[in-house]
Amino acid sequence: MNDAYLNFVNSPFGARLARSLGLPKPEVLRRYRADRPEFEGLVAIGAGREPRLLDALANLVASIGVTSVAHASAGLWMPLAHRHGLMTGRFEPADSGSAARLAALIFDASGIEDSSQLEPLHAFFHDTLRSLGKCGRIVVLGRPPQDCASPRQWTAQRALEGLVRSLGKEARRGVTANLVYVGAGAEHGMESTLRFFLSPRSAYVSGQVVQVSADGADAVESTPFDWHAPLANRRAVVTGAARGIGAAIAGVLAAQGAHVIGVDIPSARDALDATLRQLNGTPLAFDIAAPEAPAQIAAALDDDGVDIVVHNAGITKDKTIAKMTAAAWQSVLDINLSAQERIDDALLAAGILRDGGRIIGVSSISGIAGNAGQTNYATSKAGVIGRVQSMAPLLRARGITINAVAPGFIETEMTAKMPLTLREAGRRLNSLSQGGQPVDVAQTIAWLAHPGSGGISGQVVRVCGQSLIGA
Amino acid sequence: MNDAYLNFVNSPFGARLARSLGLPKPEVLRRYRADRPEFEGLVAIGAGREPRLLDALANLVASIGVTSVAHASAGLWMPLAHRHGLMTGRFEPADSGSAARLAALIFDASGIEDSSQLEPLHAFFHDTLRSLGKCGRIVVLGRPPQDCASPRQWTAQRALEGLVRSLGKEARRGVTANLVYVGAGAEHGMESTLRFFLSPRSAYVSGQVVQVSADGADAVESTPFDWHAPLANRRAVVTGAARGIGAAIAGVLAAQGAHVIGVDIPSARDALDATLRQLNGTPLAFDIAAPEAPAQIAAALDDDGVDIVVHNAGITKDKTIAKMTAAAWQSVLDINLSAQERIDDALLAAGILRDGGRIIGVSSISGIAGNAGQTNYATSKAGVIGRVQSMAPLLRARGITINAVAPGFIETEMTAKMPLTLREAGRRLNSLSQGGQPVDVAQTIAWLAHPGSGGISGQVVRVCGQSLIGA
Repeated sequence: MNDAYLNFVNSPFGARLARSLGLPKPEVLRRYRADRPEFEGLVAIGAGREPRLLDALANLVASIGVTSVAHASAGLWMPLAHRHGLMTGRFEPADSGSAARLAALIFDASGIEDSSQLEPLHAFFHDTLRSLGKCGRIVVLGRPPQDCASPRQWTAQRALEGLVRSLGKEARRGVTANLVYVGAGAEHGMESTLRFFLSPRSAYVSGQVVQVSADGADAVESTPFDWHAPLANRRAVVTGAARGIGAAIAGVLAAQGAHVIGVDIPSARDALDATLRQLNGTPLAFDIAAPEAPAQIAAALDDDGVDIVVHNAGITKDKTIAKMTAAAWQSVLDINLSAQERIDDALLAAGILRDGGRIIGVSSISGIAGNAGQTNYATSKAGVIGRVQSMAPLLRARGITINAVAPGFIETEMTAKMPLTLREAGRRLNSLSQGGQPVDVAQTIAWLAHPGSGGISGQVVRVCGQSLIGA
Repeated sequence: MNDAYLNFVNSPFGARLARSLGLPKPEVLRRYRADRPEFEGLVAIGAGREPRLLDALANLVASIGVTSVAHASAGLWMPLAHRHGLMTGRFEPADSGSAARLAALIFDASGIEDSSQLEPLHAFFHDTLRSLGKCGRIVVLGRPPQDCASPRQWTAQRALEGLVRSLGKEARRGVTANLVYVGAGAEHGMESTLRFFLSPRSAYVSGQVVQVSADGADAVESTPFDWHAPLANRRAVVTGAARGIGAAIAGVLAAQGAHVIGVDIPSARDALDATLRQLNGTPLAFDIAAPEAPAQIAAALDDDGVDIVVHNAGITKDKTIAKMTAAAWQSVLDINLSAQERIDDALLAAGILRDGGRIIGVSSISGIAGNAGQTNYATSKAGVIGRVQSMAPLLRARGITINAVAPGFIETEMTAKMPLTLREAGRRLNSLSQGGQPVDVAQTIAWLAHPGSGGISGQVVRVCGQSLIGA
């Protein structure tokens, strides 16, 4: 749980030593704190030809209360910002001396229709990246490639992914870079997503590509919510909630106003009770692997229903497949994958998961990339991705979204027990040169559970600091 | 070009030293040689419930002339193999002493419809993996998840990806593991793909997921071809053909019977002429970045048309974006991406690329994962992926496929100039613990260009030894 190297190189002596030896210097990431402003500082706006999202962006900038500066590429921003009554200025490059540090760089690439029109992206990031402060944010906005009218437009929009992933690897200093594809008609469903990516809540989420579509966005606008307690009056069930990442998920959902029902195995009852007591939540000591568990959970939730289901419970039984017993294979598949299917079926069949609900599965970097010694675990976690992709279209009519998070190296009791060299490799092989915290996974889940995130479904978001490891 | 470490640990003394120090021991990969049998040795067959592809598999086994053994999970194989007149036996596990080494493990998972039915995959690989010889092959066959009738089936089929990627990382010793999703009705369009993955031609292709669909498969069967010279009477244009990977592509396509038209810049004319002279091909010294190039290439190909277009030409101009000039950005985007678009438009508009044709773009691991210092290159190579995805549906009616290969670390003059530590990292951070050869990229392109590969379109296949690096 304690990254001694990160602490050391951020001490005065350690920083000097690291600098003189050319060692990597992971930044102490800025994370969300209730006693600090969530959004502050200057945001630079850039744009390609005919940007379509500037109006929605102006609403966002007004809503989160930051000050913007317009890069030369975004000529339309100044008059638009004035119409919205926003303070705004022109971006001055860092070399001019007087430049203020920027908190975020946002580029609207939605109007780019051809690979020959990508140059403004270079101009914007060339001019601004050096002015971006520590733990700054890069967000590029585009149109979903598969919705594009022509192959040329699709190609140009798809090309953005290579840029954003490279910026994430280049920026360092705690900076994250993410790409948001906003579907036509989904312009007003993008706020929860942009807030998340601009906030310290997304401290360990980088190099991700997220699509906000119009589906569900309408249903969302009719549901009133408060940005400060968006989950108020929502009930959330979290499996594996007694400890570690599950307890962090329960904590963040509760902090955002949800009543949390925490499920864990009977042998973890004491920890579960303690965790849920702190959150004024409800503990449910059930073994999700038991055949009767889905019916038991459904019965326990029946009176009031549930809005958010987080499938966090999971186990590992690592061995190479030649040495893995059939029981080790089967129990990992059953708990990590089949149990999710059985529980959702029970909650959906009985209408206990309410319309507009949210299902979030916990996958893993191993489910994306595979891992030696984890054939069972990786198979189960790849299956979680299949669940999300297969069920999203079926649940759309009821306004229910289903998504997955895929954690990378997260500092937990489990990773603390890893051999040193494996642990150090896991920590450093990502763009932020450090492991994530359980709260980083929890904040990502809270964003997907948000009532304003109805346009996001069927997606997998990695919480991995843009780990080098992938598929 | 010379991997001294690989050579050393494969010498008698080096092997002993590596063993005693616990160092990685990359295997000398078996590659295709015209003077050696392409297929030999025992193939073990496993299957889940209700396997749908065993009949097509029996045809394949007969066609390539190997001997099969049936694992206990594939009870249907023995009678089926007998009906096909094939020599076959039962698989005996390695512990029984009498076990022969296996050349390949093939598992038919096509009938698996639920996550609770995945156990036979464990049984098969648990029993057989230790018997798989050096440079052995693992192929898992499934159904395309998005074609599945139920979310449960989709989930189970999608889960296979986690298994195969883990097996690729676990197997070592030059073994590759790949997953082929065969669409309903495409059973007889899978032979070129299975041949490729079972052959030493795919030495450096591992951890890949490929889909064979029925689209195009019908058109294919009407085109006769010879498995020994499948590209006979085909004309192939290859850009950047003078040297390196481009010359290797030209060489492999020519060896499979194609007449190759090699394009490269006028300053590389001597090398281009020499390369093409050896292959009895045609050199075309054009700068593909020039505005008149598409018309010039089209005019040069007009009389006889062309069947295969390989967009291999590409450049790098690496710098962090803050230091990258607009010219360096623009020239990389133009040559690596926009030029492909312009040339294809010219060849397609004039009908010069014939029906049933093949377009193959060269992308890159950087286009998938992004790379620091390569914002321009990664953007262009991500765009190549967009081209493939966007154009595939439009070209289907004409039986033309479009796909991309994404090379990882390939031993070339370029990588030979890299700093030692970067080069060593690139070589070792993959499941085969070594860089690939230009011929590995070329063989993968030849498979996609094959007349039997009409069911493969819109896909990206990495040639990277299952590099750790991904997205």
